[in-house]
Amino acid sequence: MVLQTSQLEQKARQLLGDRGVSVVDIANLVMHLQKKYLPDLTLEECVDSVNSVLTKREVHNAILTGIQLDILAEEDKLLQPLQEIVTEDEGLYGIDEILALSIVNVYGSIGFTNYGYIDKVKPGILAELNSHEGPRVHTFLDDIVGAIAASAASRLAHQYPDRAQDITQ
Amino acid sequence: MVLQTSQLEQKARQLLGDRGVSVVDIANLVMHLQKKYLPDLTLEECVDSVNSVLTKREVHNAILTGIQLDILAEEDKLLQPLQEIVTEDEGLYGIDEILALSIVNVYGSIGFTNYGYIDKVKPGILAELNSHEGPRVHTFLDDIVGAIAASAASRLAHQYPDRAQDITQ
Amino acid sequence: MVLQTSQLEQKARQLLGDRGVSVVDIANLVMHLQKKYLPDLTLEECVDSVNSVLTKREVHNAILTGIQLDILAEEDKLLQPLQEIVTEDEGLYGIDEILALSIVNVYGSIGFTNYGYIDKVKPGILAELNSHEGPRVHTFLDDIVGAIAASAASRLAHQYPDRAQDITQ
Amino acid sequence: MVLQTSQLEQKARQLLGDRGVSVVDIANLVMHLQKKYLPDLTLEECVDSVNSVLTKREVHNAILTGIQLDILAEEDKLLQPLQEIVTEDEGLYGIDEILALSIVNVYGSIGFTNYGYIDKVKPGILAELNSHEGPRVHTFLDDIVGAIAASAASRLAHQYPDRAQDITQ
Repeated sequence: MVLQTSQLEQKARQLLGDRGVSVVDIANLVMHLQKKYLPDLTLEECVDSVNSVLTKREVHNAILTGIQLDILAEEDKLLQPLQEIVTEDEGLYGIDEILALSIVNVYGSIGFTNYGYIDKVKPGILAELNSHEGPRVHTFLDDIVGAIAASAASRLAHQYPDRAQDITQ
Repeated sequence: MVLQTSQLEQKARQLLGDRGVSVVDIANLVMHLQKKYLPDLTLEECVDSVNSVLTKREVHNAILTGIQLDILAEEDKLLQPLQEIVTEDEGLYGIDEILALSIVNVYGSIGFTNYGYIDKVKPGILAELNSHEGPRVHTFLDDIVGAIAASAASRLAHQYPDRAQDITQ
Repeated sequence: MVLQTSQLEQKARQLLGDRGVSVVDIANLVMHLQKKYLPDLTLEECVDSVNSVLTKREVHNAILTGIQLDILAEEDKLLQPLQEIVTEDEGLYGIDEILALSIVNVYGSIGFTNYGYIDKVKPGILAELNSHEGPRVHTFLDDIVGAIAASAASRLAHQYPDRAQDITQ
Repeated sequence: MVLQTSQLEQKARQLLGDRGVSVVDIANLVMHLQKKYLPDLTLEECVDSVNSVLTKREVHNAILTGIQLDILAEEDKLLQPLQEIVTEDEGLYGIDEILALSIVNVYGSIGFTNYGYIDKVKPGILAELNSHEGPRVHTFLDDIVGAIAASAASRLAHQYPDRAQDITQ
């Protein structure tokens, strides 16, 4: 039996909320990526685009799996040395980037650049998730949130092809 | 701090063994992929190629993360609905393929075909892993083992460019 | 300025036809992939799914770029050694697989296996494209056609989640 | 027959030079990516890492194919609408990013972020390539050069695991 998409989406959205990430937080990242190219872009359009990305099953799968690994690392329930690797967000561990890429791919390759950029500059909610303070582990979540934002930006570009030249620059 | 590769490799090899997969099992998959093209290929060459793939950090990371998720699913320790998805190797869950792809990519895109083929035909150890009998969960492991075999075949192709035309056909 | 999707789709479909590949040819590959799992699948459903894949811009871009390179190789207009590599469909050249992957990715990672399998088994139109007889070069086209078929199969799996377990096995 | 790697490498290096990109140009991008994390990194180390990336066949294949398409676009020899798309570096065309990704993948997923970042910030030679002035087309080359630099940075991270935490941050 395969689960209905709606059930997965509900759980994925709940997990994002539980871990401190709202749709508006992600929409603000989309705005950050696009505001200099699209002066008339509204936060509402960004919210709509994030909501649309959050209907995709690949995105649900990545959210559920990534946040699960973050939670298990917080609870010290992973085998060593994976426990240490995930807790410390180790520099040569790339599985978090791999999950992020599975999200970005759904909206085509034009999202890679936005994902890489936002993951490095870490505006808004990404800076909070990445502070590495306190007991919380967000090794997977920060990459997933960046990938959702990059995908929502790609989606805007595909939706408005006449503005795409700017959006993807 | 970042772990030494040797420590990761030791753990990755140990986990494969614990889950019932030997280097020779994987080498037999490589042989299965290549025997009709390379009649003089020896099992020893296949073993050497698998051993070489098992020195790569991306491969260690995928093995540790994938087997960890399989084990947690066996122990009923994942959140729902991920628990059900991984236990049942659900048809629309593609994170196992994503981890496999992170292995195959290291040896270039020529390995995709071999990975897809072997994952579908499921010879040797892959049939055992995929029997879905008993309490064991191998949702991630079977894709990882197929990816290691496909990578070892790609590596042989790169090593012997004059035989590569056959190897990758 | 960015081109309208409809203009790209028209050109992509025309190029496929010019190179000897019909939508029904690709639908037959989808049927080949699924017939043992879905005895009630009709060719019409397969045609519909292929037509839907052919509306995606990533698919248009891959078709236009790949067929362009095939045509230039036929006309002996590529620089050496690329001319020789593409004409001979050289075993270590993986750019054709890379373009194919850009198609498969749009429908999620569950399509990798079907792509790899069909590219290796080469049923129907793929055998014709891959015959390497006559002056035609189809180094890119055969991978692209296999990727469209695998994507159409993934799309069926996503469309009918209750049948997806079989479709993706 | 499959070409020797050395022959491909020679051609790939020659094409980069012909198109105005030196190894030192790329090494400067690596330095730009790492200087704030690794104050003692020398340009020579960056040059060595770029040279090592330039020995890989996937990298040669991407360079040869991408630059070939740039040159054909300059010569107005591509079919429409591909001619227009490549000449204008159209915003929804992602095949250039796909080729870049095939390079980055060889050094593992930790390079995605650096690639995306540098492709967006466009320091040094990337700004020149991307100026879209004059008759030259560098739609593929700028992504390829960014991908080589990101790969060389990943390679440094893998080479010095004790410094990798900084390198990949």
